[in-house]
Amino acid sequence: MEFRIINYKNSQRTGVITTSRGVIHTPAFMIVGTQGTVKAMSPDELKEIGAEIILCNTYHLYLRPGHEIIGRLGGLHSFINWNFPILTDSGGFQVFSLSSLRNITEQGVEFRSHLDGSLHFISPEKSMEIQLTLASDIAMAFDECTPYPADYEYVLKSSSLTNDWAKRCKAFHEKNNIQNQALFGIIQGGMYKDLRMMCLNELTSIGFDGYAIGGLSVGESKEEMYEIIEYIGNKMPFESPRYLMGVGDLRDVLKAVENGFDMFDCVMPTRNARNGTLFTSTGKISIKRTEYKDDPNPLDSECGCYTCRNYSRAYLRHLFLAREILSMRLNTIHNLYFYLNFFRNMREAAEIGRFRDFKNHWEGILEQDS
Amino acid sequence: MEFRIINYKNSQRTGVITTSRGVIHTPAFMIVGTQGTVKAMSPDELKEIGAEIILCNTYHLYLRPGHEIIGRLGGLHSFINWNFPILTDSGGFQVFSLSSLRNITEQGVEFRSHLDGSLHFISPEKSMEIQLTLASDIAMAFDECTPYPADYEYVLKSSSLTNDWAKRCKAFHEKNNIQNQALFGIIQGGMYKDLRMMCLNELTSIGFDGYAIGGLSVGESKEEMYEIIEYIGNKMPFESPRYLMGVGDLRDVLKAVENGFDMFDCVMPTRNARNGTLFTSTGKISIKRTEYKDDPNPLDSECGCYTCRNYSRAYLRHLFLAREILSMRLNTIHNLYFYLNFFRNMREAAEIGRFRDFKNHWEGILEQDS
Repeated sequence: MEFRIINYKNSQRTGVITTSRGVIHTPAFMIVGTQGTVKAMSPDELKEIGAEIILCNTYHLYLRPGHEIIGRLGGLHSFINWNFPILTDSGGFQVFSLSSLRNITEQGVEFRSHLDGSLHFISPEKSMEIQLTLASDIAMAFDECTPYPADYEYVLKSSSLTNDWAKRCKAFHEKNNIQNQALFGIIQGGMYKDLRMMCLNELTSIGFDGYAIGGLSVGESKEEMYEIIEYIGNKMPFESPRYLMGVGDLRDVLKAVENGFDMFDCVMPTRNARNGTLFTSTGKISIKRTEYKDDPNPLDSECGCYTCRNYSRAYLRHLFLAREILSMRLNTIHNLYFYLNFFRNMREAAEIGRFRDFKNHWEGILEQDS
Repeated sequence: MEFRIINYKNSQRTGVITTSRGVIHTPAFMIVGTQGTVKAMSPDELKEIGAEIILCNTYHLYLRPGHEIIGRLGGLHSFINWNFPILTDSGGFQVFSLSSLRNITEQGVEFRSHLDGSLHFISPEKSMEIQLTLASDIAMAFDECTPYPADYEYVLKSSSLTNDWAKRCKAFHEKNNIQNQALFGIIQGGMYKDLRMMCLNELTSIGFDGYAIGGLSVGESKEEMYEIIEYIGNKMPFESPRYLMGVGDLRDVLKAVENGFDMFDCVMPTRNARNGTLFTSTGKISIKRTEYKDDPNPLDSECGCYTCRNYSRAYLRHLFLAREILSMRLNTIHNLYFYLNFFRNMREAAEIGRFRDFKNHWEGILEQDS
């Protein structure tokens, strides 16, 4: 993996990550494909809307169908028929948010599957082994996602454990990485700036291909989130990609890009699509509203997606009310196209020195949605 | 609409129906798109697998979103983005199978919507008005689908009503058909050959563009169904398309094609797909079975569909168990491709005088599934 910064101005930057499976233009939005499929989408449709990278979940794929099966079938790319970059998360977040009976020791985490209650143990080494078997392009170090709220003592202890695990991840990964997989470290530290800084220092001294901020967008206020983003963004290594995990609200994205972040992921566009909430150039709309019942216009007359080129709001409303699968498909295509287009326009604006205009324009629109 | 017979041998025939929106090769399988969408499919995917005609349900579209809305938006083709032929059923079957509180009079049927309990009245004229507003290429006369079992007296009365309604449908349709919509009559008569014959005679004396057999595949035995198919098929007008409604089990199709039928519709391939039951050149398979958990092979190595070209049984099993939308999509593409391919091969076999070989071959395979 190689990262090249193309444009840099007032902390904000654009760049290109090059992997053996393709390039990723940054700031990048990574579409979430939890179980080895982006809900309602085919790989061809992802390519068509310009997706350059997707994110798959280690925890889910480990439990079902099992990483070994995927490994035997040639790895995740071949299994899911997506030949472009894939980032896998570490499994940490889901172990802590989805499973029950978590027993955390220095060694790792024992937990019960949310699917069938079966008992499992994931250590930093195991997470690396799973991700190497999945053969993703970018793996994430195994971490404990610090809950919110949490007192200083707890966060200190948890973050220190994450840092120890990061070291073990790096050691195991270095020894077993035969396929040029990149490995990113995750900076925890909760809402405490000095702990964030401690984590950052420890991780950079270990040395990773990229650095992520975990433990944000977990219930804290926007003010708290923004304080951490503003504090940490530009202290992270300049020459490596900076990934803000799980953040996808576009106002948060604008704030983070302004502070030097390069990568994002979020289920917001896909989940909202299935619930009938659609992003447009003038703000969000709920497609079930009566006012659209015989509206012949596309969702967004400024949008060039397959849905907007071919279907009326009236038909989309009908499909949604009739709970048809095509409703989820067309809505997802639209929302993902919107997101990728937003990021594309943001990069272009930045490259001609107009990021601030772009941000002001969108903050005006997004304000109305909140 | 024009119907031309290309090949005729031992009752069995192949032909071409030409409409202003495209041709339909017969024997034809019409894919069911109840609510104005074929479940899990996009119109582009339907084109790609070679679909020439789809069937939409008058009852459903009348209730939601309402035919008037569809009419205002330019008709059903434009509304659903499918510019090839559409056949609409009469609404009769669903009025009798889905709604509650049916009050049948000579005038028509009063019923309550299965969606919200609201009260509605559909007469033969109303059914024609709805279908003309939807602007389908082929409309069906409004009928009472005779239940099974039913005694002679009931069937006589019910069939006679259907015949009266057929006359009124024809009269209304003739007066208001400004768009070259074809109209098919429906032959009822239950399991009574003389009543089937009575209906056939009455309908041909009214005169329709095509003739359908209704009231089969409603719970009767295969023997009873085949008796009617064998009895009536070749008595139906030679020069018009013969449509066997709601029949799609491939053994029944083979029997009906042997007896001169040209058109079929059934939810079987789409519904089975969503339930994980898939048709292959060697018989049906249930994708959830453990034996497929690391099977790298396509569903059917002889199949050329998108699913078989790109995905393993192991991945399809995973998607099914994970209840992913892509599971329903890929399975539906495969089953519909299989059905259309079956019909294509059947036509080709017939045209080179090998229909009997084709039938014997498939009966051997289908036997194992039953």
